[in-house]
Amino acid sequence: MAQRVTLKQVAVQAGVSYQTVSKVLNKQAQVSKETKERILEAVQTLGYHPNSIARNMRLQQSCLIGYSWAPAPPDQVNPILDQLLQSMAQAAETAGYHLLCFPHHFDQETVTAYRDLIDTNRVDGFVISSVEYDDPRVTFLQERGFPFVAFGRSNPELSFPFVDIDGAAGMQMVVEHLVRLGHRHIAALAWPKDSRVGQNRMDGYLSGLAANGISVSPGLILRCEGNFQGGLEATSRLLELPVIQRPTAIMAFNDVMAIGAIRAAQERGLQVGVDLAITGFDDTPMVQYLTPTLTSVRQPIWEVGQQVISILLSILNETSLPGAQVLVRPELIVRESSRGQSIQNDKTKLVNYP
Amino acid sequence: MAQRVTLKQVAVQAGVSYQTVSKVLNKQAQVSKETKERILEAVQTLGYHPNSIARNMRLQQSCLIGYSWAPAPPDQVNPILDQLLQSMAQAAETAGYHLLCFPHHFDQETVTAYRDLIDTNRVDGFVISSVEYDDPRVTFLQERGFPFVAFGRSNPELSFPFVDIDGAAGMQMVVEHLVRLGHRHIAALAWPKDSRVGQNRMDGYLSGLAANGISVSPGLILRCEGNFQGGLEATSRLLELPVIQRPTAIMAFNDVMAIGAIRAAQERGLQVGVDLAITGFDDTPMVQYLTPTLTSVRQPIWEVGQQVISILLSILNETSLPGAQVLVRPELIVRESSRGQSIQNDKTKLVNYP
Repeated sequence: MAQRVTLKQVAVQAGVSYQTVSKVLNKQAQVSKETKERILEAVQTLGYHPNSIARNMRLQQSCLIGYSWAPAPPDQVNPILDQLLQSMAQAAETAGYHLLCFPHHFDQETVTAYRDLIDTNRVDGFVISSVEYDDPRVTFLQERGFPFVAFGRSNPELSFPFVDIDGAAGMQMVVEHLVRLGHRHIAALAWPKDSRVGQNRMDGYLSGLAANGISVSPGLILRCEGNFQGGLEATSRLLELPVIQRPTAIMAFNDVMAIGAIRAAQERGLQVGVDLAITGFDDTPMVQYLTPTLTSVRQPIWEVGQQVISILLSILNETSLPGAQVLVRPELIVRESSRGQSIQNDKTKLVNYP
Repeated sequence: MAQRVTLKQVAVQAGVSYQTVSKVLNKQAQVSKETKERILEAVQTLGYHPNSIARNMRLQQSCLIGYSWAPAPPDQVNPILDQLLQSMAQAAETAGYHLLCFPHHFDQETVTAYRDLIDTNRVDGFVISSVEYDDPRVTFLQERGFPFVAFGRSNPELSFPFVDIDGAAGMQMVVEHLVRLGHRHIAALAWPKDSRVGQNRMDGYLSGLAANGISVSPGLILRCEGNFQGGLEATSRLLELPVIQRPTAIMAFNDVMAIGAIRAAQERGLQVGVDLAITGFDDTPMVQYLTPTLTSVRQPIWEVGQQVISILLSILNETSLPGAQVLVRPELIVRESSRGQSIQNDKTKLVNYP
């Protein structure tokens, strides 16, 4: 049996990287016609055997899609994980692909795990979620020319395939709903810093106010840790404002802050949904069982999972350009925490709360 | 290049199945010494090339562990999914393995997806969870001799490697806690039929009562759909019992039934945790934010994930016999819904509630 010619030798002969050869032979890379020809010529010259290529392709094509996520803090639940994984796994399976789930490491650079999986030919592509500004995964995967689709956007100037929830639209729906009930003093409980998702939701809050001719009160925008305690403390501060400045409605950027806000209001004897409207975001399954039940914004996660995989498969099969960018619209779920009675005809009530 | 001898030819020559050859060569099966020798002889006779075996082993060893789960109903959340996946993925990764997550299909036989993954050499082993009595996956995987570890037990007579939460111990802790507060009329909200997990929890309820010399009142054991509405309706029925038969404490077999129970009690003007104790099971992250906060039983999921993978890896590496069976102890988390005041010195109070 002749000594097997390796991919590496082909790469040296063609004057390109190992990865480029691998990707061209696996039809995973878009390279110039010239480079492709140089590689195929090297394959011929060295006698890199077609059977070896076929076998190699089989080895290289894992038919696996890598996915990882940061675990939720112990007091919270990831409200979308179950459905997102089911949806992605189902969409992938119909095309003969499966999800490879890899763990989140708080103790190493984010891209390390991604690099390892690429270098060991474990996956054909990635889905990334919780995308941030200047997300190192985006830069890294683009540099490596490795297929990926994001659930979420990053900096506007970074162009890559994504599916995202239109969080701004969701927040606008909340503002519209509250304005229709007569609210004009609407506070926002935002995250501590401008996360990408946070900024998107903030945009919706601000444009919702603007669309209704309400000027922004900087004192009604509070940044707090996105947890129960953060929501509770921020709401306590809001409820200690002079009556004339106090909000009649509080929009939390996630459900768990809204739950903290409800607790703060209840501790002051307020009836949430009547004396004060409070809304969340995410529609965590349990919020329908709170007292009062929580108005929230539901994200169409099944659709996100299907679309993310569909775009990734198109890229892997080269049936579309890797530029698909999809926004899906969330849904407002109105419940007791904001429904209450309209405050329009009962403005004096506001002045009375403790 | 000579025509490559296939595994199939080796199987025919040795008079065994393709799978047996594959497993023996991949050191995944325990077969008789005789069978093993017959296979190795066939390998020699046909000139099945050692290099081919090595390559074949590489192909066959996917270093992937298959895992699937049924999605939670839309009004509920899978309280353990995030942590279980993180834990398993992390434990697997340290040994060069990854999780392959495949979707749950309501419209096909449970074993179909498992069979497909085995037949396509996609995974080296499985973790199965939500194990039921006569679980078809257990029988199927045992028949195929395919490595797996279960999170959960099945029929006592079925012997296979598992890690399970000691649900009975968890329920006993709840009974002890309630008895210490003075309760003797303790109701159980169980699932409609005897699921394996349900029976385990029921065992704990019954033995907890017995250990405290409390005789079982069949009227205090209600079976209901394991959801909010089920818990609400069952509790309504309990609260309509004649005063003398009415429970002073209700143990729900999961959190969401407990939440329904709380709602039913509150609708009757009862102060849960004072007039009536209610407890759950699972310690879903959000239950600490309910009003009142919910007493529940927390499952050490991280430990389960680590142990399940550790046992499976031992089986794959033949470093232990495939008989490991591990029970891990859950933890009682006492919160407002049961803490209240002791009813011991205030028995008259019970007679007064509506």
